Amino acid sequence: MSKIGVLLSGCGVYDGSEIHEAVLTMLFLDREGAEIVCMAPDVDQFDVINHSTGLPMDGKRNVLVESARIARGTIQNIRNIKVDDLDGLILPGGYGAAKNLSNYAVKGTEAEVHPDVKRILNEMAQAGKPIGAICIAPVTLTRALNGRNPEVTIGNDSDTVSAIEAMGGKHSAAAVDEIFVDLRNKLVTTPAYMLGPGIKDVAKGIEKLVMKILELAAS
Amino acid sequence: MSKIGVLLSGCGVYDGSEIHEAVLTMLFLDREGAEIVCMAPDVDQFDVINHSTGLPMDGKRNVLVESARIARGTIQNIRNIKVDDLDGLILPGGYGAAKNLSNYAVKGTEAEVHPDVKRILNEMAQAGKPIGAICIAPVTLTRALNGRNPEVTIGNDSDTVSAIEAMGGKHSAAAVDEIFVDLRNKLVTTPAYMLGPGIKDVAKGIEKLVMKILELAAS
Repeated sequence: MSKIGVLLSGCGVYDGSEIHEAVLTMLFLDREGAEIVCMAPDVDQFDVINHSTGLPMDGKRNVLVESARIARGTIQNIRNIKVDDLDGLILPGGYGAAKNLSNYAVKGTEAEVHPDVKRILNEMAQAGKPIGAICIAPVTLTRALNGRNPEVTIGNDSDTVSAIEAMGGKHSAAAVDEIFVDLRNKLVTTPAYMLGPGIKDVAKGIEKLVMKILELAAS
Repeated sequence: MSKIGVLLSGCGVYDGSEIHEAVLTMLFLDREGAEIVCMAPDVDQFDVINHSTGLPMDGKRNVLVESARIARGTIQNIRNIKVDDLDGLILPGGYGAAKNLSNYAVKGTEAEVHPDVKRILNEMAQAGKPIGAICIAPVTLTRALNGRNPEVTIGNDSDTVSAIEAMGGKHSAAAVDEIFVDLRNKLVTTPAYMLGPGIKDVAKGIEKLVMKILELAAS
């Protein structure tokens, strides 16, 4: 049974993990018999967004504590995760992947990646273990692996494509029900809600991503 | 295209809607081409639970605002929902269904149901439109429809079964991949995480529930 990490960044599309993408990742992993290892960094969120208005709201929230909502309480601090604990790793999207796992949302191509996120991504790549990234998460993945010329898709958003190329990555367009595979680096990406429009559409790409990650993890 | 309401109660199993159950409900509705109408009451949550520890934490959160995380911002105040807006209605579980939609978690069989939740549930039943309830949500459904002798399942938890019977309902045991149908009242229920164990298991029952609600909505 493969052990696949799911790296969360909060709970909600505008300031954390995109909930549908995270839950669909868990659904397809569980259906295939994989063991799911949820993890998140123990840091404050960059911001807290009122999801009914789209506006910032008062108060601080912790990425690990909020991510635990998606994980139903079973979650680990990424600081304690070692590359030997995992056969593969998947990053759902949501703005949290670009606000909390890195500060791409603020610093763009000069973004700093959370140290433990950067560590585990590079250790996975070094060990030849597959990494999946959904929606906007490929920007943080590209920045973290910037010595490895990662090849990814985020759909077709031209500003984000330019940023990926500026960070040393290579972008290929893909539809919401497609994945892009960088076989050299064992990276699998899918646009999900970068394109939408609905949950049934993003589910198709995420199901393919999960199947490919499990195939690469077993090979 | 059927218009199916999804009545949310926050965002997280311990103080709101169970996230997996809510997202799976939306996935299967979207796959079948239904229009999804997310709604929640505009009230403070009964409490806020740190999902990484299971303990209460400081601060207030609003049920509508937190539910909007699952709905990706597209959500309505249940006060503005009319029975004519819907062909069917589904209540995901999570403690929020028994803390925020009613106060069952505190008052048990003497629970008061939120006025607009009680109103819409009774209007739906009166109009012969189907209602689905997942996990613990059947306790609030039973209390709201207590003149109609609703027949439901919450799995097999003996204390909850006793409470349902004490509130004028009738309980039938069911497995996690099963639904129970009260054809007279057009109610469909499934145990989901009252039994678990995993997301792939609860998905089976929820898929059957959604299919049955859509069948009843079209008949």
